[in-house]
Amino acid sequence: MTVKISPSILSADFARLGEEVRAIDAAGADYIHIDVMDGHYVPNITIGPAVVQALRPHTAKVFDVHLMIDPVDPYVEAFAKAGSDIITVHAEAGKHLHRTLQLIRSFGKKAGVSLNPATPESVVEYVLDSVDLILVMSVNPGFGGQSFIHSQVEKIRRLKQMIGDRPIELEVDGGVTPETAPLCTAAGANVLVAGSAVFKNGTYAANISALRG
Amino acid sequence: MTVKISPSILSADFARLGEEVRAIDAAGADYIHIDVMDGHYVPNITIGPAVVQALRPHTAKVFDVHLMIDPVDPYVEAFAKAGSDIITVHAEAGKHLHRTLQLIRSFGKKAGVSLNPATPESVVEYVLDSVDLILVMSVNPGFGGQSFIHSQVEKIRRLKQMIGDRPIELEVDGGVTPETAPLCTAAGANVLVAGSAVFKNGTYAANISALRG
Amino acid sequence: MTVKISPSILSADFARLGEEVRAIDAAGADYIHIDVMDGHYVPNITIGPAVVQALRPHTAKVFDVHLMIDPVDPYVEAFAKAGSDIITVHAEAGKHLHRTLQLIRSFGKKAGVSLNPATPESVVEYVLDSVDLILVMSVNPGFGGQSFIHSQVEKIRRLKQMIGDRPIELEVDGGVTPETAPLCTAAGANVLVAGSAVFKNGTYAANISALRG
Amino acid sequence: MTVKISPSILSADFARLGEEVRAIDAAGADYIHIDVMDGHYVPNITIGPAVVQALRPHTAKVFDVHLMIDPVDPYVEAFAKAGSDIITVHAEAGKHLHRTLQLIRSFGKKAGVSLNPATPESVVEYVLDSVDLILVMSVNPGFGGQSFIHSQVEKIRRLKQMIGDRPIELEVDGGVTPETAPLCTAAGANVLVAGSAVFKNGTYAANISALRG
Amino acid sequence: MTVKISPSILSADFARLGEEVRAIDAAGADYIHIDVMDGHYVPNITIGPAVVQALRPHTAKVFDVHLMIDPVDPYVEAFAKAGSDIITVHAEAGKHLHRTLQLIRSFGKKAGVSLNPATPESVVEYVLDSVDLILVMSVNPGFGGQSFIHSQVEKIRRLKQMIGDRPIELEVDGGVTPETAPLCTAAGANVLVAGSAVFKNGTYAANISALRG
Amino acid sequence: MTVKISPSILSADFARLGEEVRAIDAAGADYIHIDVMDGHYVPNITIGPAVVQALRPHTAKVFDVHLMIDPVDPYVEAFAKAGSDIITVHAEAGKHLHRTLQLIRSFGKKAGVSLNPATPESVVEYVLDSVDLILVMSVNPGFGGQSFIHSQVEKIRRLKQMIGDRPIELEVDGGVTPETAPLCTAAGANVLVAGSAVFKNGTYAANISALRG
Repeated sequence: MTVKISPSILSADFARLGEEVRAIDAAGADYIHIDVMDGHYVPNITIGPAVVQALRPHTAKVFDVHLMIDPVDPYVEAFAKAGSDIITVHAEAGKHLHRTLQLIRSFGKKAGVSLNPATPESVVEYVLDSVDLILVMSVNPGFGGQSFIHSQVEKIRRLKQMIGDRPIELEVDGGVTPETAPLCTAAGANVLVAGSAVFKNGTYAANISALRG
Repeated sequence: MTVKISPSILSADFARLGEEVRAIDAAGADYIHIDVMDGHYVPNITIGPAVVQALRPHTAKVFDVHLMIDPVDPYVEAFAKAGSDIITVHAEAGKHLHRTLQLIRSFGKKAGVSLNPATPESVVEYVLDSVDLILVMSVNPGFGGQSFIHSQVEKIRRLKQMIGDRPIELEVDGGVTPETAPLCTAAGANVLVAGSAVFKNGTYAANISALRG
Repeated sequence: MTVKISPSILSADFARLGEEVRAIDAAGADYIHIDVMDGHYVPNITIGPAVVQALRPHTAKVFDVHLMIDPVDPYVEAFAKAGSDIITVHAEAGKHLHRTLQLIRSFGKKAGVSLNPATPESVVEYVLDSVDLILVMSVNPGFGGQSFIHSQVEKIRRLKQMIGDRPIELEVDGGVTPETAPLCTAAGANVLVAGSAVFKNGTYAANISALRG
Repeated sequence: MTVKISPSILSADFARLGEEVRAIDAAGADYIHIDVMDGHYVPNITIGPAVVQALRPHTAKVFDVHLMIDPVDPYVEAFAKAGSDIITVHAEAGKHLHRTLQLIRSFGKKAGVSLNPATPESVVEYVLDSVDLILVMSVNPGFGGQSFIHSQVEKIRRLKQMIGDRPIELEVDGGVTPETAPLCTAAGANVLVAGSAVFKNGTYAANISALRG
Repeated sequence: MTVKISPSILSADFARLGEEVRAIDAAGADYIHIDVMDGHYVPNITIGPAVVQALRPHTAKVFDVHLMIDPVDPYVEAFAKAGSDIITVHAEAGKHLHRTLQLIRSFGKKAGVSLNPATPESVVEYVLDSVDLILVMSVNPGFGGQSFIHSQVEKIRRLKQMIGDRPIELEVDGGVTPETAPLCTAAGANVLVAGSAVFKNGTYAANISALRG
Repeated sequence: MTVKISPSILSADFARLGEEVRAIDAAGADYIHIDVMDGHYVPNITIGPAVVQALRPHTAKVFDVHLMIDPVDPYVEAFAKAGSDIITVHAEAGKHLHRTLQLIRSFGKKAGVSLNPATPESVVEYVLDSVDLILVMSVNPGFGGQSFIHSQVEKIRRLKQMIGDRPIELEVDGGVTPETAPLCTAAGANVLVAGSAVFKNGTYAANISALRG
């Protein structure tokens, strides 16, 4: 299995995001992980659809847009039109997860579901036909630079088993480093999000290689 | 009275905000107007404290941070520490306006209050001792490119009279162009926010001059 | 000034609303007042857009749709397409009254604003260019059969003066009877909503006549 | 096992609901399914307690009232007094499901729990002693005319097993047609809700028969 | 005019509230000011109806219950039955102030309205027939020990004028000391709430006397 | 296994809480169970951090603080500083349970999670490394004097098994009496909360003994 790396722009320089996106593209990033926070679902505000749209011309790589917002439905169209390829929502946000996934797909986008560290995998059991990606949060969403929560490895393993041979990607976000990445991939993850581990020291290509193991 | 121009970065290129900020600084902007939206107080999400912080090294001009968010109080500290100079909140957001203004000043920042188009000026009557800036919205907050609402000119005039000789700046945001700017300043405004009117055609310096009238 | 009567379907038989609407049309009603409640803005749930749409073929009279809901904006389109002629929202619901009125008019509908008994008339001062109707609640919205609150007569009078010669209708809703109707019209109201006063005893035409005074 | 049919009035003519209710009663409906929506739990507003009350004299059949509202508790009494026989609430609405079920039974009514398509059956595991009906949503609640979500068949099967020989009815709502009905009943459902499948073409009795299989 | 003193139990010893209440009763308190906070309307949680009820047997003085909570209506009955004499709610809490005041009076209690420092007096203009007490907050509600906000003296003065000869008490709460008390009474206040100014040094009677001026 | 008794002050005399706490300490209570309610997560308001702080000097026993509030995070620091030893939050309150538990432990306090009667034990499966106590509600939280819900015994049993030999206490709250206590302890609980069963008849020591079985 090939591991994909999705660098989180949460650790990029927000004053020159276009340049940063081009740099991680050149450095071998598979996806561009865009962290959207609204100050309500999580205690931080980051960026919105206009920023996604401004970044779109800078790369042809997959925009892996992670919506840490609630409500989600009123914003799906804006993020779809801004150039997202995958739109991932939180299972804990809102009460109509299946409807939200339908809505994302109605715009021709891939639909993802993210689970907070405490959330059991049973929340996705009845939407496996409706998702293209499942994102396991291995830190609490909201801020970069946190430590990997080891209990999530078992969740990754169980989700991998639940997914079976369905065409669903299994992504991990939070505290992913060259040390924790192998735990994730061994458990079944195939997409790794990393912020500081990619952007530190300016050696993007080397950092991405190190994460691939 | 000298008119100050506060270009709204809502109309800048979000992929290279640092460069844009340096360009409007060089073009003669007095303030940098930073539009923060949370997708709850207004139906759009823009940028948060990490973006403000990333822009801070790019200019020494006043960061005129306009919080279109609700609740406000949990985020005041983050925006203060990110390098804001003026923090403006909406009178309609939250139920404890006086407390919020105290909180902003407790971080050594200037405190502003913004009024939506329908909001009467009576909402600021008892906080005149606690504000450094009053912002009249001459469009509905949320998106750029809207037309100036003429009924707000009378509100500007009444606020100017209410302010008297207190050291409070009177700012206008929304649909400000070389045509509508004189209406605002004639009524008493001394700070003009402008988005597309500054950023259009790339002629930032000429555009700012045109707004000064 | 001619007084218009807008019977409130809150007092009609909900099992045969089409027939009731045809009956009040025949009995001389000018408008049909449709009370929409969501159980959040007011402590009662009544009817929604599908009911409005079902009633539309039963009369050509003006559908005077009173939205006692919050939020309002996500439902304006549905009520516009269901056949509303006037869409009235509450000044206390939401924080962007001017935007909501713009939205209603963008669908080619007349826009109204309603004020709760405790709400001062200053809330409409800056939207007079954006409204076609102002509705003074002379009872607390939510239920039929309440008594007229006399303090509202003064509010009607002041609103009439504020309106001046603008083409804005001034409507009163709550406890309107042949006894209280003259107080309203003397103060400047030109549209009277009445529920039980119209539907009682089944003598719709006589009841409507009595309200006209 | 006898299958019960509960026609959803969401597909009836809202202008003459009493007549519609009498018609489906005569056509052989077992229950009358009344869809209550508040515009908050679901993105639609339909009808409230006064409509239920107005319909009560038109039939002696069971009123199967489905509350797609949140909060629920403040409205249970109104719907109980309006003539409901079964009051079904959503497991996802509110955080005190057991309390709500106790409250419904305290008015002498049967208590139901409904599960959205994404909701796992574990949410009802600890209230099996407190429910009289479990409702599996096979579409996302809010609107009529949607397609049956096939993943729900497995949920029906598991719930049937979980119920065992407890006197709990197992109902399905959403996209139920003569084609999908047998899937539901084979999996263990004994009450089928149907809207358009009952009301289409005006042949209510034939349509109901077709659903019984 | 006689000034009434209403000591706030926010500054009492919560471990022996009954004893404290008896002590301030003996020391000459006219009212007992009970500060109820829910952690939502204000950023603090204090006490609820069971505490009010437990204190009731300890004094025959007026229980002046100040509800800093939102929503209010669901709790009015509990506070009425717990032994409140006056129930004061915030004008900024909820959107149906007139209904809340009606509800309080329906339990035979006196109804009060409180205004936050930034709130203009226009919010009470149309409820003067429905209130028995108006409370001007001269600090932001939530915590004891804050400094008197001088801009509120003008508000007291205007409210006194608005009240005219209606039988409405005018109360002030926040930073009331022997120094600020005369400003309040000179402007028209007749009830003074004081916390630390009453409870400090244990000399309750002397402290109360000092506040009377 | 030794059973610990944690008397709930919800049944104490709120007018003399310090004395009550000393009395249950002397009577052999192991913990002091402090019920905090905010009127939002549950339909009752009880006491807040200032009361906890006032009680702290009256005993050296463990303060077992049960937060029936939502949101929780903004209040964790206040309850930690007020002298709590264990801070227990509800799994249903908030969407970031793991973050809340981290926050509690960051103040050097023990972290607990409480489950409502309908909540399945799967909600704690991924936080077992982050909790010191799991609290099973055997009544619906909000009021004292309710009857034990027997379905919770099975939940206690399963949680005991899930806990294994981790150092996690298993507590039960609601309807615990000398009759129901043995059911709880037999299933694996080691801490019993009791209100009326401890405080009735004033025989605290005997009552506590009776609960130990």
